[in-house]
Amino acid sequence: MNVPLIGESHFIVESFHSDCTSHLSLAVLGNQLLNTAASHAEKLGIGRQALLEQHQAWVFSRLLIQMDHYPYEFETYSIKTWIDSVSRFFSNRHFAIFDAAGKAIGYATSVWALMDLDTRQALDIAQALPDHVDCVAPEHPDCPIARTTRARVTATEPAYTFRPLFCDIDYNGHFNSIRYIEHYLGALPLELLRERPVHRFEISYSTECRYGEELAVYVSNANVDEYDLELRKADGTVASRAKAIFS
Amino acid sequence: MNVPLIGESHFIVESFHSDCTSHLSLAVLGNQLLNTAASHAEKLGIGRQALLEQHQAWVFSRLLIQMDHYPYEFETYSIKTWIDSVSRFFSNRHFAIFDAAGKAIGYATSVWALMDLDTRQALDIAQALPDHVDCVAPEHPDCPIARTTRARVTATEPAYTFRPLFCDIDYNGHFNSIRYIEHYLGALPLELLRERPVHRFEISYSTECRYGEELAVYVSNANVDEYDLELRKADGTVASRAKAIFS
Repeated sequence: MNVPLIGESHFIVESFHSDCTSHLSLAVLGNQLLNTAASHAEKLGIGRQALLEQHQAWVFSRLLIQMDHYPYEFETYSIKTWIDSVSRFFSNRHFAIFDAAGKAIGYATSVWALMDLDTRQALDIAQALPDHVDCVAPEHPDCPIARTTRARVTATEPAYTFRPLFCDIDYNGHFNSIRYIEHYLGALPLELLRERPVHRFEISYSTECRYGEELAVYVSNANVDEYDLELRKADGTVASRAKAIFS
Repeated sequence: MNVPLIGESHFIVESFHSDCTSHLSLAVLGNQLLNTAASHAEKLGIGRQALLEQHQAWVFSRLLIQMDHYPYEFETYSIKTWIDSVSRFFSNRHFAIFDAAGKAIGYATSVWALMDLDTRQALDIAQALPDHVDCVAPEHPDCPIARTTRARVTATEPAYTFRPLFCDIDYNGHFNSIRYIEHYLGALPLELLRERPVHRFEISYSTECRYGEELAVYVSNANVDEYDLELRKADGTVASRAKAIFS
């Protein structure tokens, strides 16, 4: 089997992909990581459509992005991705991000569970997708990201509340994974975001959110460069946690 | 002078460019129209950077999009654009949108004013950019869009209120023109948006909005297929008007 164990996609920072600092926005980078992953999974035969036919789907569980430098408007960049390891319930997909000259400017890791769409339960990956272990790349670029500590939010009042709009939901009717990032950034101080890029951003998803439901972002400033974030539903359920560290 | 009087750009409906119906989202289409316009203006020598050197900028005043069909996820499409006419204070740029087979699937028109960045006043285009008249395309694709009537909003209570977030603002610190569309769509019934595409969408901009300021969307259902919309500031100033017509 001639499987491309490392996927690669090339991008340009379109003007609407940049934030107000004219650099690639963190949310768009998140989208491009998912695009690159989706395109690679397709080639490996484990893409959305192939799994759908078996009543299965990948569930996006965690994402950690660490950037030394964000490309500027109209600059090109590329993303390489590979499956780094697989455990019983989780597939770990890594990424390396390169500037136009081919220099690594950042890294990302992601964790995916495999869901049975009939029972809505997590599947044992080795049983459900026996070939998946062959998709793990034995050789790949470096991805030197340390694990982070869990976000601990002590705030008792939300930074703000909102309801997902039409443009925030995906084909499943769920609040789009990447829009969470936009709302988390919206809870951080504007001047900080303007002056210093986010060096590390980690997000985990625990419960799906739906169109129109009331959601609240809570933020605690763990230390001067570090913000812990939670997205909570009206009944207090934590739907997602995140951590933003500034360089 | 060998000026390309008709600009053309090619696109693909990336997965994060589609809405929950898996078709190209209206907001992303708006962004791609602006991208195509920016790229063409650049070639004509009247792009953002060239004008900035003269302390001038194009101000986006109106946009009307009329679509017969929206491309599906991963389909390709292209946009042609040209300057259709120019009056004393306004440059009228038109667009035609084509599917992968080259069939026209929609059209758009836009109106731009030229601003003096020192005085913040509109400039007489013929005086400020004497060559601009040579940029008007004598021959171009059809753009059969009828003018619409002005949106008339009678609602006295807002459909919802929000504050622009970090991800909603552009390099000027202003609320991004295209994010208005996302918020207008957010005020329309979800079931309608899921079942019937927006056939025509018209938006006009009158006052700039800033990060964090309270904005409210007002909506009136002029008739069963037509929604009139307004974006108002806390003091009641109308910042923008829009009209959405469903097919």
